[in-house]
Amino acid sequence: MITVNDLNPRLLHAQYAVRGPIVQRAQEMEAQGHKIIYCNIGNPQALKQQPLTYLRQALSLLENPALLENAAVVAEYPPDIVARVRMLLQKHPFGTGAYTQSPGIPFVRQAVADFIQKRDGVKADKEHIILTDGASKGVQAVLTALLKTPQDGVMVPIPQYPLYSASLALYGGRQIGYYLDEDNRWQLNQEILEASIVKAKAAGTHPVAIVVINPGNPTGAVLSRENMEMIVRFARTHALTIIADEVYQENVYAKGLRFQSFTRVMGEMGVSDITLFTLHSVSKGFLGECGHRGGYLELRNIPEDVLAQFIKLQSISLCANVSGQFATYFMVAPPQEGEASFSTYIRERDAILAALKRKAEILGEGINRIAGMTVDIPQGSMYAFVRFELPPDRTVDVSRLSAEERELHDARRDSAYCLSLLEETGICVVPGSGFGQKAGTFHFRTTFLPPQDEIERLVERLKTFHEKYVHVLEEA
Amino acid sequence: MITVNDLNPRLLHAQYAVRGPIVQRAQEMEAQGHKIIYCNIGNPQALKQQPLTYLRQALSLLENPALLENAAVVAEYPPDIVARVRMLLQKHPFGTGAYTQSPGIPFVRQAVADFIQKRDGVKADKEHIILTDGASKGVQAVLTALLKTPQDGVMVPIPQYPLYSASLALYGGRQIGYYLDEDNRWQLNQEILEASIVKAKAAGTHPVAIVVINPGNPTGAVLSRENMEMIVRFARTHALTIIADEVYQENVYAKGLRFQSFTRVMGEMGVSDITLFTLHSVSKGFLGECGHRGGYLELRNIPEDVLAQFIKLQSISLCANVSGQFATYFMVAPPQEGEASFSTYIRERDAILAALKRKAEILGEGINRIAGMTVDIPQGSMYAFVRFELPPDRTVDVSRLSAEERELHDARRDSAYCLSLLEETGICVVPGSGFGQKAGTFHFRTTFLPPQDEIERLVERLKTFHEKYVHVLEEA
Repeated sequence: MITVNDLNPRLLHAQYAVRGPIVQRAQEMEAQGHKIIYCNIGNPQALKQQPLTYLRQALSLLENPALLENAAVVAEYPPDIVARVRMLLQKHPFGTGAYTQSPGIPFVRQAVADFIQKRDGVKADKEHIILTDGASKGVQAVLTALLKTPQDGVMVPIPQYPLYSASLALYGGRQIGYYLDEDNRWQLNQEILEASIVKAKAAGTHPVAIVVINPGNPTGAVLSRENMEMIVRFARTHALTIIADEVYQENVYAKGLRFQSFTRVMGEMGVSDITLFTLHSVSKGFLGECGHRGGYLELRNIPEDVLAQFIKLQSISLCANVSGQFATYFMVAPPQEGEASFSTYIRERDAILAALKRKAEILGEGINRIAGMTVDIPQGSMYAFVRFELPPDRTVDVSRLSAEERELHDARRDSAYCLSLLEETGICVVPGSGFGQKAGTFHFRTTFLPPQDEIERLVERLKTFHEKYVHVLEEA
Repeated sequence: MITVNDLNPRLLHAQYAVRGPIVQRAQEMEAQGHKIIYCNIGNPQALKQQPLTYLRQALSLLENPALLENAAVVAEYPPDIVARVRMLLQKHPFGTGAYTQSPGIPFVRQAVADFIQKRDGVKADKEHIILTDGASKGVQAVLTALLKTPQDGVMVPIPQYPLYSASLALYGGRQIGYYLDEDNRWQLNQEILEASIVKAKAAGTHPVAIVVINPGNPTGAVLSRENMEMIVRFARTHALTIIADEVYQENVYAKGLRFQSFTRVMGEMGVSDITLFTLHSVSKGFLGECGHRGGYLELRNIPEDVLAQFIKLQSISLCANVSGQFATYFMVAPPQEGEASFSTYIRERDAILAALKRKAEILGEGINRIAGMTVDIPQGSMYAFVRFELPPDRTVDVSRLSAEERELHDARRDSAYCLSLLEETGICVVPGSGFGQKAGTFHFRTTFLPPQDEIERLVERLKTFHEKYVHVLEEA
């Protein structure tokens, strides 16, 4: 029988805090009858967000095309959805039941290319689109392909979404952390980037790519145009590939801000000699269809033989799930003005985005009223990365700890805090150490996805909990 | 911009013949208006097999639960399906739209455990079931976890399904090929197994596991009970983990044969000190739901801390797609006697399996009538591995070639044959070299999934093509 000592050490070392021990404890508590508010993960429909009607109507017809033959049923569906599904099944008669071509159904890839072209005003080629089981699988494909030697490193933000650190650990690449600038609304900072690449090279690391998450996870920040242009110039100077995680592109709430893709920014800068991978997903935005595992990877500025290797990699897992491919199609090609389902689509979309904006504000403003807790009101995405103060730990002289020991020490403290928060209030958040944070600072990531009344209660409970927790530490 | 020289060399070396250059040529020809018969891949619904009614009815309601509120629509569905979906949505109110727990929805995992327990008469634990995006992802998880050093090797049949060789190449493990015994209906042979493990160890390879595909892909063979017991004893002697690919378990056609799982055989032998991974999928059997990417991995005889590592690995990709999880549920928990949809289910199931049996015989018997071509009438799965003779290549003295040169030489010859078959007849099959074969023998893998009249035409065209191809070579 195998034991844990027989396993791949890279698997043993990989950490994935978003679904780590605190979440497992929450599931245990829930099984024992406790009410848990899951703020650990961007999973909108688990927090009562309703799916968009048009998407689910279309998917139900695609799953069971026999419904199209039934006049009584057809009469219950908007005619544009019925017509669209008939068209889809004419173009792709195998429906949801057959493997597709490895990179996905050709006309869905074309619809994605059209979407990018319209969004960004640049040419997009369907041959450079690969449909994936959610954006995670696209990220994993890119990292699998780009890591040539164990010395190869990828620049990853701190704080970051831990898919990146976990995948790098698993595939045996090095993580080159770069701090986001908390004092400047979590934008990237050129000096910090330069310093981190110098340090990495000095350690024998060969930097191959930079990951940028925009809008930010866990930070909730939206990057400015200048910041993005700085990043492109930085990548160009250092011959780095850009991996742009843009899954929250529809989630921008702050007044006067709008999402701009790296595709657009690079195109408008006239830069075409830096490889760019961009990722998108049906899980976020206003669809929130996490369970459908749909998404795409766009590969820009790459030679044909590199593209062929990505298609081969995709083919080893056959293809992305086909309902997810169709969900991706409906994300990039929603109902149009004049169609019967258009007004419902717009109403549902706007209601979800308005509620998210409102909840981001309620959460952010409420937290900022708690003594010893601060947060930027999220500009985008589905998260707030909340900073909290803890009294100094008088049991340890932190000045005598190495950097690694200090990190572990801080991680124990923020994990203990989040576990205690869970046990006392049922609120499940992820410790900042799961994403990375500056030494001596403490954070947690929370979503603002629960219904508004729950967010209001959450803020109250958080206040009571925090005051008590800090008081107990001070008395100890 | 990155070039192919910047890519992971393990990716560059990985080969996946089932979707390789011949298939790409077929897609090109199809785009130019040629009619292609795709026999390269077990993709039933792309070859006119219809999905099972009960499964699609259930999935359509799960995608659009609003249908359940509409009396006119509900009246069109069998009451047991409506009741079942209501029950599912009560147990799992998030439906298809939310991430589930990493290893899958608890009651679906329980249904899988119940299915195994009923099938095999052994205890099965839902905690040891992980729902996966098709069986491929389960295989990849197992190989990721088991390969500890680059010297670790996995025993893989020759011929094999190339997912195994491709994944081993990609993850940096060694492939320890063992020939299946073509003269004994492609069963495993203990002497060959022993010889191959001795040879591997002599080369410094550390064998950690053995892959067994039963029913066989590409061989179409079903393993006997004695053969399976021999494999278990062999694995035990050499402390190997067994990876049992049992995705074709419903596809057994030969009279007097029936599928037995490794779970059952090991249980009845009283062996509990060898780790066993078993894989199943909604893609094969009589469902043929390849597009839904559903399946499961059962982990048997493993310690809890090893299980925890597998759950963590799954969590990094969040969870399997949820429609696929529900499809897996309906595979293991189909309509029961007395329910309204039972008779349709049985009728559809039996018709599909009877047609596959008939087509296996038509294909096998037809091929055996072609001079210079032989095949075992497939006992199971969806494939025949057809052996064909080519006149000696008078341009090369093969006796002077190294083993590797010989393999390459043979591979060029069977690839040229299959490419020519495609160009002349539109029949798309996969060369034997993509799966592995003994030096100097030539094979191709074909499915017997096309409709019966197409199988009949395929046999005729194959005969004409083969005679002409051999004639031209002889004249050359």
